[in-house]
Parts: sequence; C-alpha cells; structure tokens
Amino acid sequence: MVCAMTRPPLIADLRSDTVTKPTPAMREAMATAEVGDDVYGEDPNVNALQNELAHLTGFEAGLFMPSGSMTNQVAIAVHTRRGEEVICAEGSHIYEWELGMMAAFSGVVPRFVPAPLGVPSPEDVRLAVRRSVHQSPTGLISLENTHNKAGGTVIPLAVLRQMRAVADAEGLPLHLDGARVFNAAVKLGVDVREITRCFDTVSVCLSKGLGAPVGSVLLGSAQAIRQAHRYRKMLGGGMRQAGILAAAARVALREGPARLADDHLRTRRLARALVEAGYDVDLAAVQTNIIYARLPEAERRAAAWAEQGVLASALGHDSVRFVLHHQVDDDALDQAIRVLTA
Amino acid sequence: MVCAMTRPPLIADLRSDTVTKPTPAMREAMATAEVGDDVYGEDPNVNALQNELAHLTGFEAGLFMPSGSMTNQVAIAVHTRRGEEVICAEGSHIYEWELGMMAAFSGVVPRFVPAPLGVPSPEDVRLAVRRSVHQSPTGLISLENTHNKAGGTVIPLAVLRQMRAVADAEGLPLHLDGARVFNAAVKLGVDVREITRCFDTVSVCLSKGLGAPVGSVLLGSAQAIRQAHRYRKMLGGGMRQAGILAAAARVALREGPARLADDHLRTRRLARALVEAGYDVDLAAVQTNIIYARLPEAERRAAAWAEQGVLASALGHDSVRFVLHHQVDDDALDQAIRVLTA
Amino acid sequence: MVCAMTRPPLIADLRSDTVTKPTPAMREAMATAEVGDDVYGEDPNVNALQNELAHLTGFEAGLFMPSGSMTNQVAIAVHTRRGEEVICAEGSHIYEWELGMMAAFSGVVPRFVPAPLGVPSPEDVRLAVRRSVHQSPTGLISLENTHNKAGGTVIPLAVLRQMRAVADAEGLPLHLDGARVFNAAVKLGVDVREITRCFDTVSVCLSKGLGAPVGSVLLGSAQAIRQAHRYRKMLGGGMRQAGILAAAARVALREGPARLADDHLRTRRLARALVEAGYDVDLAAVQTNIIYARLPEAERRAAAWAEQGVLASALGHDSVRFVLHHQVDDDALDQAIRVLTA
Amino acid sequence: MVCAMTRPPLIADLRSDTVTKPTPAMREAMATAEVGDDVYGEDPNVNALQNELAHLTGFEAGLFMPSGSMTNQVAIAVHTRRGEEVICAEGSHIYEWELGMMAAFSGVVPRFVPAPLGVPSPEDVRLAVRRSVHQSPTGLISLENTHNKAGGTVIPLAVLRQMRAVADAEGLPLHLDGARVFNAAVKLGVDVREITRCFDTVSVCLSKGLGAPVGSVLLGSAQAIRQAHRYRKMLGGGMRQAGILAAAARVALREGPARLADDHLRTRRLARALVEAGYDVDLAAVQTNIIYARLPEAERRAAAWAEQGVLASALGHDSVRFVLHHQVDDDALDQAIRVLTA
Repeated sequence: MVCAMTRPPLIADLRSDTVTKPTPAMREAMATAEVGDDVYGEDPNVNALQNELAHLTGFEAGLFMPSGSMTNQVAIAVHTRRGEEVICAEGSHIYEWELGMMAAFSGVVPRFVPAPLGVPSPEDVRLAVRRSVHQSPTGLISLENTHNKAGGTVIPLAVLRQMRAVADAEGLPLHLDGARVFNAAVKLGVDVREITRCFDTVSVCLSKGLGAPVGSVLLGSAQAIRQAHRYRKMLGGGMRQAGILAAAARVALREGPARLADDHLRTRRLARALVEAGYDVDLAAVQTNIIYARLPEAERRAAAWAEQGVLASALGHDSVRFVLHHQVDDDALDQAIRVLTA
Repeated sequence: MVCAMTRPPLIADLRSDTVTKPTPAMREAMATAEVGDDVYGEDPNVNALQNELAHLTGFEAGLFMPSGSMTNQVAIAVHTRRGEEVICAEGSHIYEWELGMMAAFSGVVPRFVPAPLGVPSPEDVRLAVRRSVHQSPTGLISLENTHNKAGGTVIPLAVLRQMRAVADAEGLPLHLDGARVFNAAVKLGVDVREITRCFDTVSVCLSKGLGAPVGSVLLGSAQAIRQAHRYRKMLGGGMRQAGILAAAARVALREGPARLADDHLRTRRLARALVEAGYDVDLAAVQTNIIYARLPEAERRAAAWAEQGVLASALGHDSVRFVLHHQVDDDALDQAIRVLTA
Repeated sequence: MVCAMTRPPLIADLRSDTVTKPTPAMREAMATAEVGDDVYGEDPNVNALQNELAHLTGFEAGLFMPSGSMTNQVAIAVHTRRGEEVICAEGSHIYEWELGMMAAFSGVVPRFVPAPLGVPSPEDVRLAVRRSVHQSPTGLISLENTHNKAGGTVIPLAVLRQMRAVADAEGLPLHLDGARVFNAAVKLGVDVREITRCFDTVSVCLSKGLGAPVGSVLLGSAQAIRQAHRYRKMLGGGMRQAGILAAAARVALREGPARLADDHLRTRRLARALVEAGYDVDLAAVQTNIIYARLPEAERRAAAWAEQGVLASALGHDSVRFVLHHQVDDDALDQAIRVLTA
Repeated sequence: MVCAMTRPPLIADLRSDTVTKPTPAMREAMATAEVGDDVYGEDPNVNALQNELAHLTGFEAGLFMPSGSMTNQVAIAVHTRRGEEVICAEGSHIYEWELGMMAAFSGVVPRFVPAPLGVPSPEDVRLAVRRSVHQSPTGLISLENTHNKAGGTVIPLAVLRQMRAVADAEGLPLHLDGARVFNAAVKLGVDVREITRCFDTVSVCLSKGLGAPVGSVLLGSAQAIRQAHRYRKMLGGGMRQAGILAAAARVALREGPARLADDHLRTRRLARALVEAGYDVDLAAVQTNIIYARLPEAERRAAAWAEQGVLASALGHDSVRFVLHHQVDDDALDQAIRVLTA
C-alpha cells in the first residue's frame, strides 16, 4: 500500500477508518481515567471495557490488546497447534496483512477457500477440511466480517449459521476477524450478537470505524481468554496503565456504532459519484464503508489528489481504496467528490 | 490419500514410484558397502553419492537426507527468515504434502501463483513479490519439476530461464523441488544440468523413479550446504552408517535415469487405454510417469482393483492416481490394463 | 509472583515501579496531544519520542512499542536466526518473565552464564560462545542493566566495555535489556550514553521508574530499527494514534530521570530498616530501587501487610520484593516501614 | 567436539559408540530383508522392530526414525505447546547437542535443574514447575538415562519412581531420552521395563551401544505414537523402504544388550588404567561405557593418539571422552591403554 503524504488544507482523509483523531469526549475520558496496572489485572477501565464488550457480544470474557493483528494472532494461537491448517477466505487480513505471523508464531499455514464478494461457501469450507494422515490437520476455520480486501463486504447471517454447523460437524473452532463487525451488524440490521454468537472467538477493533485511538478486544469463553492472556503476554501486549486507552475505547463503544449507518450512506454516495465519473467500481461490493476502484496509474492519481487535500490509498499500480469514517462529514465528502471527479 | 491394502497375487503397484523394492545390484551394494559415521562426515558412500550427484547437476556440494520432504524443508530454512513468503505454484508438494512444516519450522507462509499444467508464469511470479512494508517480504521462489499434483508435468526450459531472470532481478533465491527432476530431463531430452543450472538449490529424490530404497540429496553452493548441514541435524536427519542407504542410492543413480523413458512410454500407453475405456484423463497432463483420472466413487473402485492385484491411489472421492516405475514391466502393465478397463 | 490485593487506605504500593499513575503533567499532555496514525508513521508525538530517546542514547533510530517484553523480543528477532543461542545471565528477564517467547517466536534457546549480583563475567561470556558444528551457533549476547532478579543491580562500565570487546572479537551483536537503564546511569553517575554506546540495540522502558503509563522504545541503527518495524507489526505492536501514550512518555522522559536518585536513597533507607528489623536482605545487592528479602511464609506476610495498606510482591514461598518509585514519598515510606517492621 | 582424523592402522575408535560398523549378521539381514513402503506403513521389518521394542519396554507402540535427535524432538513436540518449559537436567542432550530444535520446532525453552553425576533430585524438579500466570507453564519433564554428558551415569530406580510420582502429582508428562537405556538396565541389573515403565514416552537408539548402523525408536501409548507419526513426517523422517535399516536394527536388538556388560567391564579397566597413569578421571562417574578425563591440551593430545591408531574425542581445550563399544575387544583395549598411558 502506498500512502500519499498529507498536505494542507486537508479536505478528507479517506485512506482508512483508522486515521480518526480522538473526539473531545475521548480526550476528556483519557484525561480523567482512573487507571491501574493491567498486567496485574487492576485497571478499572480495561476491566470495564472488556466486560462491556463481552456483554454486548454475548461472550464470557474479553481481553484488551493494542491491535487487531494481535487479537487475531492470539486467537489463532489459542485454537491451533503447530503444523495445522487454518481455513480462511482468499484475501483474508490474517494472511494478507499480518505478515506471516500465523506461521512465525503459531506454526500454521492457511488453506484458502474462494470468497466471491468476501463470502466463502460453507460447502467449500467443509471440503477444505483435511482428513488424510498424510496431510496437515485442520485446526481452525477463520472468517472475516466485514471482509476488508473484498470491499467491506458482509457475510449473510444464513451463511454464518451454516458455517457454525460445518464447524460443529467437523469438531473445529470458528474464529471471526470482526475488526469491523459493527459495520456488518449495521448493514444487516441486526444486533451484533446475531453475528458473534456463531463463533468461538471474535476479534473486535475499537480503533477503526468506532473511532478509538488504539485498541482491540478478543472475546471468547473464560477458558479461551485465560489462554489468550498468556499469548498476549508472550507477544508483548501486556500494557501497564492501559486504562488511558480503554477509557477512550469505552467512549468509542458507546458513541461509535450509532454513527456507522451515516458512514455507509456516505460511502454509497461516493461510490455512485465515482461510477458516474467513469470509475471502475463494483457497486455490489460497496456494502459498508469501503470502496475499491480499479484505476490506471493509481499511485500518480492518489498523489495528485493529495495535493488537493484528499487522501486515498493506492494499492499496487491499478487500484485505489476509499474508506469513510465519522470524521468525514457531508461537506467534506462533497468537496472530496469534487476533487476526485474533476 | 486412501491406499488400498495389497492382496496376493500382486499384478502391479501403481500407487507411487516410491514403492519399488531394491534391485539385486542394490542389495549387493548394501551388503558390501564400506561405511563410516556420517555425523562425523566419514561415510565413504555418502560422500561419494553427494559428490556424484553434485557433479551430475553442476553444484558445488550435496547433502544426503532420509527424505525429499527433509531436503525441501531444509532448503526453505536455508533461504528464508521467519515471517517471509515463499512463492510457489498452487498444489506444490512443499505445501500440500509436507504438513505445514514451512510454517512450523521456518515460520514462513506460501504465496501461491496459478499453475496451469503445473507451470506458473514468470510474470505472475514477479507480480507475487511483496514490496510494501505493510506486508511480509518474499524470501524464496520455489518451483516443482516435474509437478506431482499437476500430473508429473514438466516446466519448459524457456520458462525456467525466465524464472531465473525474475529471481535475479528481484534478488531472490530460487529452489527446485526436483524429486523427479530426472523424469523432467528425460521428457525434455536434455542433460539434467540444463534444468538444475537455473536454481540456487535443488532437491533430488533417489527413492522415487530412480528406485533407491531411501534417500534424497539437497544440492547447492558450498555455503548453502554448510547451512543445510546444521538444519539437517536440527531436523534429526543426521544418520550414522548411512552409507548402507547411500550405496543403494548410488546404484539407483547409475541405473535409474536410463529406465525412465520406458516408464514414460508405458504411462502414455496406460493413459490412452484408460481414455479409450472412458476414463476422464487430461492427456495433455500426461507427460512423464503419472496419470490422474477423475472417477466417481474412486475409493470403492480402487478397493475393487486391489482385490484383483492392481493398486492405485484414490485421492478424495473422485480422483485416482496411477504412477509407473521400473517394477511394472510391459506384461504387468498389460494385465493391469485388463483389470482397470474390465 | 503472587500479588496481594489492595485494600484502602493504601499507604504504599511497593510491588513494582510499574504501578505508578500518570502525573498531572502526563494527563495534560495526553489530553492535548496532537496525534496521527502511527502505522503510517504519522504520529508526531511518537516520532518525537523516538527521536528524543535516540538522541539521548546516541542511536540512529528508535521504535515505540507497548511493552518492554516486546522491545526485547523484537531485538532478539532482529539479531538471530532460528536455532541459535542467546547468551544471557542467569535470571534474565528475557527468559524468566517473557514466557518462552524467544523460543516460540525467534526459535532460539538461552545459554546461561553465572551472574553474581547480576554481573556476568566477560570471560564466561566468551567461553559460552559455541564453536562446534555439532552445536547451535551463538546468535546474540544479551545483558540486563539494572538486573531485575538480582535486585536492581548495576553492571560496571568496565565490564560493559569488556563485553563490547568480546562481542566484537566474536562478531556477535550485543543487546541491552535496559528497562531500568536510567536507574543504572544514575547509580553509576554517568550520562546514559556511556552505557548505551556499548550496545547494538537497547530496550528502554518509560513505564517503570520513569513513570509513564505505557510504553517502551527499542533503539538501534537505522537498519536494525527498519527490521524491528516489521517484527513489531508481526507481534501486533503497531498502534494507531499511539501519540496519546507517547505524549505521556515524553513527559516521563523529561521528568523521570531526575527523580531516580531519590528513589535510590529511599530504597537504601528501607533496606537498612528491614535489616535492623531482622530481615534477611543482601545489602550488597541493594544498589538502585529494588530490594529482595528472604522471608518464611512470604505470601502470608505480604497478605497481612496488604491489610495494613502496604503492598509488596511475594515471590514463591520464601521471598518478597519491594520496589521504590516516585509515588512513594518520604512520609509514605515512614509509614510503610512502621508496618513492615512492626 | 574436535575429532581427530583416523590414520592406519586403527587400534581402537573410542570417540563414540556410534562408530560401530554393521556386523556380518546385520549385513546378511539387510541383504535379504523383505521391505515395503513405510510411509504407507507396509514395511514388515519396520513394523516388527517397532513391535519388538514396544514389547520389550512395555509400551503400546513404537515409531522408527533415523536418529535419536528426531525421536527426542518428536517426543517434545507431542507433549508440549508453544511457549512452555521443559524441565531437564543440566547438560541434557536434548539441549546441548540437538541445536536449539526444542525452540525452533516446538517453541519451548529448557528449565534446568542441577544434576550431580547426571541425577537430578525429584524435589528440585518439583520446585522447577512453574505456577505463576506471569510465567511460562511447564509442559514436560525430560530425563536422560544414562546421562551422556555426566559420563554415562545411571539414574537409580528409586529416583525414577519418585520422578514419576512428581510428574503424576503435577499432571505432567515424563519423557526419557533413553539413547543408552539398555546400558542403564545392565548397570542396574534389571529388566529394561523397570526403567521404561516410569515414563510416558521413551526414546531408544539402536545405533549406539547396540551397534545398528542407523535408527532410533520412540515408544509410547498408541495415541502418542499416532501424533508422533505426524511430527515425524513434518521433520522429514518418513522413509520409504526403511526395512533395510530396521532389519539391521532388529539384529542389534537381539545381539546388542548381552554385550553391554563387557563394554562396561572394559570401561572400568580403561578408567583405572588412566587414573593410574595420572589422568584426572572421576571414577564415581564411570558407571557404564563412557569416560571423561580432564586433560590440558586435549586437542593436541587426541591428535597425537590418533597418529598411533587410538581415536578419542577432545571436547574443548581441557577434556577428552572415551567410549567403549563391542568393536573394541580386550586386545584392542590393551593396545589402546599402552598408547594412552605411554
């Protein structure tokens, strides 16, 4: 990913929903947060955040970590033993953007299934389970919802339930990379629990669409989270007065989900404007807050937009990504559209 | 892979070219082999085998190991650091049949490129090289020739040379899983060095088509083999009086290559007979000594053939594999064809 | 380590110097910090902290991470390849308290040298370097200064320089776990650079004696830090608006070092009071801000103190640890001494 | 270890009991062995060897591998998960001579206990079990009997039984590196089962004192061996017509144990002769077939002996090792003593 450098005045930073700055409420929460040493389990804001998110998603326990890569990789470590396979969709974040960590730490390899619009078929997953003693056993099925690389696409509830059935029939654990699971819930119009209940563990990011400065939470059974605790420590994710971050994350959790619907609306608006201007965008893939457009000379184009205050991510030579978030409002979007369609 | 149990009288064991029994010349060589402790580098037959194969393939040095999985995995360890990617063709043996060892030992993940008939395109390989700091760097390009899962298919010399050019341009090492590289050389009608010279390291199996009971050799520069020595010891591949096996492998190396052309002829004959009998075989993929046929109820069919003395490998529910080798002669093949086409 | 639960009113938390709460200046800094997305390298406070600490310690570059375990383990990954040995003192934090991560991630094993009062001898280190091809090669020498488990003890400059000479003679990198390197500099009465200049990489914690809520920095050459960047991402240590934490850490870096001398004075005072009261304390080991006392029924005793507002860490059945920090002032110490010597 | 080069005429190779050449009975067995493809589980000699050794040692199952390093490392993989600790005696082969493989493959670290004369105390082992959530959990206790680096010393049965009790009380598996377990049984004057029954898994080498050219067997429950099968394949230890080696190993298993008492007698004789000649040998450590002597200029001395036909292993600058085996008879020993004491 090549990211253009920002130049004033900034109209809209559409590179990612990770670029948001803390809101005044988050600033206030951080400034006044009661904290403790979370390595000793004594930080009240960390404990509260973990409990609140566990409650929201219907799990027994949660564990706060500095990134979604860590929550995903800890989940993989909890569920697998060395040499096993992790069934996942083509283009999964755990493989594409987590730098071989599944191999380097957990000693496992991916087994890909096709995923048109980010949605793998339960039958393909079932067929991907290894059964021969001459092959690596399957250790985990991992899904991603919304699916980043496919364009923020959503897995329908019916598919999730079939995946649960496959996992149960095969005796396999099922993990969700739910970095943007609240976007999925909003898109599906359901309580997030309808999604999370299908999984053994779920990774949720507070620092993407929800807007917190830092932090992700892994959710699961009390036993899974106990194991996760050791793996988090191994990875160096045990932080001391982490309540500073957790306090902001709690604000994000309260305020963030309700704003996502607006992000999705603006995303549709931008996507239509791009298509009208001749961009090659697959509108079927524009389901939440992400747009991919195929575009010749993507890097040069992104650099030119940056000169005019609109930042987007060029991916390779011929693709560009736009991501909406709560710090791009309607006015900013109007201006951005003018730049992008000029 | 489900392998039918053998029942007398055996007509032909077509499950693999690994099933051959030692020839009388190999038996004689093993019975009289001068040996030493190879962990101390003192086994004359091991040293001779390594030198002979290094000379044949144009490398500085070689290292004897108990299996082709070990020579491949040692090569991966030599070339990579944890967290890197190994570019390889879909269906590569190093991924499909080596049980996640690239992850468990070397801590690396595969990056697949499409490979119609087992031949990836140099341009696809070039595009698969990672360049972003947000991604895992590429550590190695690994090819397989002949390509087992694609049907014993051969990579043309022109493609190999282009791959070498890509590797050079990218500053990447290039490894060959040459378990059946002599089959490739025979098919291409070239000295095996025309193939091996394109690579930094090559893994060669003595125990497949060449007919030795046990053993593979990793070939490379003196420096690469020095590193390989340590990794072999780590994997537990340091054997004591290994000259027993090396003595047989030397016979295989002398006698084996010349017999492969006959195996290929018989393989074509079998493939044509199967097609005439209505089997679904892609004849374009039948280039050396392996045939894959799509076949409903593959396991049941293989079991029935076994009752009549013909062994084949059922792979999954709908596929069967036949492999020819020097212990299936024309008569045995005639009988096997009668069983298979009855 | 068994840690007693706190009960009001708290007189002094002597369990660790990690338990400090952010000061008002840190709160203010966090509330007003300008931030950016550090995964894109755009967080001004993170960049400033890294530069300031690099300048203070004389290195080209630094990298902010959520914990000292992560900075240490990333350093080990940067310097080693799988299967190598890391020479370190008995009782080193990288082994005792980092949960096997050197093995699980970097695939390396420790090679211990004796370390009376936490100071290994350069000659023992030299002799511990592996030279046989039948053994694992040495990949790294790692020291710890001050040495936590030995009691916060300091390695003399002369020894550090001899260690550098050994490392140079052997062609090996030298890493410092400098979680409390500022305590060491204060004790030695030297600029911290006199210590850090002996090393290839140094790990510094802001969240121990210096008082920041969260954060450590790995320092090294530009090339080492470039590699560290990838490993940090693999471990999940890439944080988004990490400047919140870095802003507080910058305050800690400005205010913290000057306070350490007082911590050391109070530590001596507590140690003498304990000895006078009959505790078994090795005063020769009390050099900075840590005291270990051998004590029967350590857990029961620590629980009883906790009832009276003094927290200490019981380690196993017969040992207790006291750590001073800037949030234990003279009055609090007087009261704590009364409780501990009653 | 520096090994002197052999020069004719060889009087005695005392470097190791691994240097023995196959006996005529082994040659004959290898020449006529019925073989099959052991990767398919069809090699009759491999199956017979595994069953015979399982029966002798009282286990459900066994698995043949090319080396004792592999059987040990596979056992470690079977019993542990990444990040755990393996309690073992100082100087254990699994750490000293297996090149960091416990870390590189299984991701585990050693936790050493003192072992005077190679015998750790059960109480020290119990105390070494980790119990804090801030530490790596213990995954395995591993003993070595006889203990190579301590001088081929034997662990008394009473200690073994106490170790079993500790393992049971802690819920931990107990592995034996029994490379020379038959030497231990001979020394103790008991059936080998009296030793092996204390363990969950045992690794036995056929290629040391027993005299086979190549091969070790891991013994354990049917379930443990099923897992071991996968790890063996991952390590590249699956061999094809391995029955060649197994046939010789079966001869070694029949003929070898009865000869060990003579090796031990000759070892005592050599040790006494060395002491009389002024060598620094701890006779209390000379219990089976190994002698260590401290000796200035060990490498130069070993080289000088080699000139006269006696080979010994110089270890470092000041130590030399002599190992007796069935291919050093009384006459050879007499001559060797003359050379060594001249």
